[in-house]
Amino acid sequence: MSQAFDHASEHMQEAIDELVELLRIPSISALPEHGPDTRRAADFMAAALRRAGMENVHLAEPESGYPVVRGDWLGAPGKPTLILYGHYDVQPPDPVEEWTTPPFEPGIRDGRIYARGASDNKGQVMAIIKGVEAVMKTEGRLPINVKFAIEGEEESGGKALPNYLRDHAEEMKADAVLVADSNFPHPDVPGILTGLRGLVYTEVEAQGAAFDLHSGQYGGAAPNPFNALALVIAGLKDSSGRITIPGFYDDVIDPTPEEVESWGRLGFDEQEFLRTQIGSDAYFGEPDWSVPHRLMSRPTLDVHGIRGGFTGEGAKTVIPARAVAKISMRLVPNQDPGKIFAAFERRVQELATPGTRLVVRAINTDPPVSASIDGRGVQACKRALERAFGKEAAFLRMGGSVPVCTVFQEALGVELVITGFGLADDRLHSPDEKYEVSQYEGGIKTTIAMLEELGA
Amino acid sequence: MSQAFDHASEHMQEAIDELVELLRIPSISALPEHGPDTRRAADFMAAALRRAGMENVHLAEPESGYPVVRGDWLGAPGKPTLILYGHYDVQPPDPVEEWTTPPFEPGIRDGRIYARGASDNKGQVMAIIKGVEAVMKTEGRLPINVKFAIEGEEESGGKALPNYLRDHAEEMKADAVLVADSNFPHPDVPGILTGLRGLVYTEVEAQGAAFDLHSGQYGGAAPNPFNALALVIAGLKDSSGRITIPGFYDDVIDPTPEEVESWGRLGFDEQEFLRTQIGSDAYFGEPDWSVPHRLMSRPTLDVHGIRGGFTGEGAKTVIPARAVAKISMRLVPNQDPGKIFAAFERRVQELATPGTRLVVRAINTDPPVSASIDGRGVQACKRALERAFGKEAAFLRMGGSVPVCTVFQEALGVELVITGFGLADDRLHSPDEKYEVSQYEGGIKTTIAMLEELGA
Repeated sequence: MSQAFDHASEHMQEAIDELVELLRIPSISALPEHGPDTRRAADFMAAALRRAGMENVHLAEPESGYPVVRGDWLGAPGKPTLILYGHYDVQPPDPVEEWTTPPFEPGIRDGRIYARGASDNKGQVMAIIKGVEAVMKTEGRLPINVKFAIEGEEESGGKALPNYLRDHAEEMKADAVLVADSNFPHPDVPGILTGLRGLVYTEVEAQGAAFDLHSGQYGGAAPNPFNALALVIAGLKDSSGRITIPGFYDDVIDPTPEEVESWGRLGFDEQEFLRTQIGSDAYFGEPDWSVPHRLMSRPTLDVHGIRGGFTGEGAKTVIPARAVAKISMRLVPNQDPGKIFAAFERRVQELATPGTRLVVRAINTDPPVSASIDGRGVQACKRALERAFGKEAAFLRMGGSVPVCTVFQEALGVELVITGFGLADDRLHSPDEKYEVSQYEGGIKTTIAMLEELGA
Repeated sequence: MSQAFDHASEHMQEAIDELVELLRIPSISALPEHGPDTRRAADFMAAALRRAGMENVHLAEPESGYPVVRGDWLGAPGKPTLILYGHYDVQPPDPVEEWTTPPFEPGIRDGRIYARGASDNKGQVMAIIKGVEAVMKTEGRLPINVKFAIEGEEESGGKALPNYLRDHAEEMKADAVLVADSNFPHPDVPGILTGLRGLVYTEVEAQGAAFDLHSGQYGGAAPNPFNALALVIAGLKDSSGRITIPGFYDDVIDPTPEEVESWGRLGFDEQEFLRTQIGSDAYFGEPDWSVPHRLMSRPTLDVHGIRGGFTGEGAKTVIPARAVAKISMRLVPNQDPGKIFAAFERRVQELATPGTRLVVRAINTDPPVSASIDGRGVQACKRALERAFGKEAAFLRMGGSVPVCTVFQEALGVELVITGFGLADDRLHSPDEKYEVSQYEGGIKTTIAMLEELGA
């Protein structure tokens, strides 16, 4: 297999060029006006799979939404089957003016590729494809069977892939799935995830008066939905950072001593992380828990924005009729999204003030996920990361949800192998998202090594 | 003076025709394309003052903007001097399609004149001019001295009149100013305003992380400026509607028994007002005070909007770096805007949570205005309204600010006499603005009676 490693090293410029071409496509699945771009990215993925020597490459079209890009190589009977996952859609690039170079005109500076989607997830899915391609080009075959399933709705919560997996459970039968959609916890420590936080994403709509009113004429008598929402939000999470929804923490299981011990090895520097990753002068969160605990094993609650009213220049004295807060909670393994949403809604309604009617909607819910350390895929991945990067991987939990993991687990019952080739400072979903070329190369080699480890 | 009353009654058709001619001029000061129309209205006012027998009639041209129309009659040495204020500009007529008859083609139906500016303020300033004219035509002189100052930038916030008053403080010396730019609080009760709420309009900017972050990766550790602002806002005004800024209510003076007594005569129906004017199922505000008190004599605090973050469709899990809340306070007489802003800023900073830096900016401040019930002008106006309309006036306070009142008080130190001949349903600034012919006649007679009362 060292031949494939050499092939990967020798063809890095091609791999970079191909990724840059993909990054030029603004495949923002959340914005309807980017529908044609998102479809163009799907076509690009299919072409990349064909170049990699995959068979039966096609776009599986859903009833609505964006296609799942499929392609297999099934020439190793008796050997394990691995699903290779990724997504070709990206987050919107706003605020565009804060990018150093335009989000869809990739710039390479100091060994880093800057573009929306560079790390999340185009650079990672391309690493897998180029890894498979390197083995096919050098060996003419793979040591195991693979089934690609690359979706285009990861950033917009679409249902095309979940539906596809449920409808094609037999066709998609496999032993494990490789999900490379996260990052190294430390530049010198690759990570394999054993837990992912879930998500309950809500909207709380506050309706006060029937129409916008002038604060001079009505102030002091008219309900104000912004003030009402502030009282609600302040009643969900106190000024110490603790969530005050009754029962919210009831089902949280503390991490095991082994997990806590392994986190200690990450060399996590709280001051350094605060300075470089957050850029503020203090953390805000549950004071009784260390920052790694809060990020990995503690649930939380955040407001993302509040729609409505007057936000322009100047001094318009409107009492808006309506305001809508977008509020989400991250859940940890063993918390139930339905139970948490119900507790949230109850608490919100308790906090309502006279004259303002509150409506609570669940926009999105993803249960938390956990994966076993002892699985064959997870162990193969650990060895592969070590061979590709020369660094020992740690078992971690992650703060975000990867909804597709739940779907793979529930629809197919496959082992989850969740890892990532990005770095922690890749600025996913932010201006100046980037991906290191060296991580790209390591990702390609990890894929090569993992195919071999699983085929051994 | 009954001769002047008779003259007014006998010449109402002329007065109506003259007003209709003025209403045909679309003098929209906020729209540059209506500049020539606005100047035409100024010329019209000057001609009307000359017809009324005023002397030294001229247009005082500002450096930029629209002229102040001036004209005096100063033939009563030893008698009081009254400034007569009004404005010849109007609001834009949008949405034009909602007018029954075109906004600048006045229609008279059921004793009402429908046109943009009919009530605000052309019909009221013409009532004053025609009242002065009636006395001049019948007596050949006035019982007091008058100085007209009619501006053309009231609806566009121009500075021509404020600058003129400051630059001509000696020329404009007077005992009182009559500002007739409001309306009867009830069809059977004329109103004289003894207080106008002031305004302190602020922005509170909250900066958490240095850049937008993903709540999955950073939630639980990163400061969230929306949660921080919610804690601030909830700490400014509690769930009972009481403002909790220390010292906020210290300088508030409760209304006099005479004011409270006169409010009782308004027949204010709290349920009716809630249903028709607010359209909610409950009021929100200080529970210890009745709704009229809260609207007229109590200060308040409202959030107008919060800029930043994600407010679109779907479930973007961003922890925004920054959020900006627009928050204003209405002040009542005797509260000092500078003192209140300082108390506000202090309280906001007290409520800051770790990791979020707060910056408080004053966007706009207007001091509250108060007029004494016992003033000679106010008392003369009360008697004049009663003689003209046969109805006893109430002393009221108003929720909004009328910036020109502050200017008269500060630049000239004159007594403010703030009243109005319109009705509450005149639809100022809305389609189908109207003015009752009977109110026009009453306004003319009020002016006649007020000149006499002040001259007595």
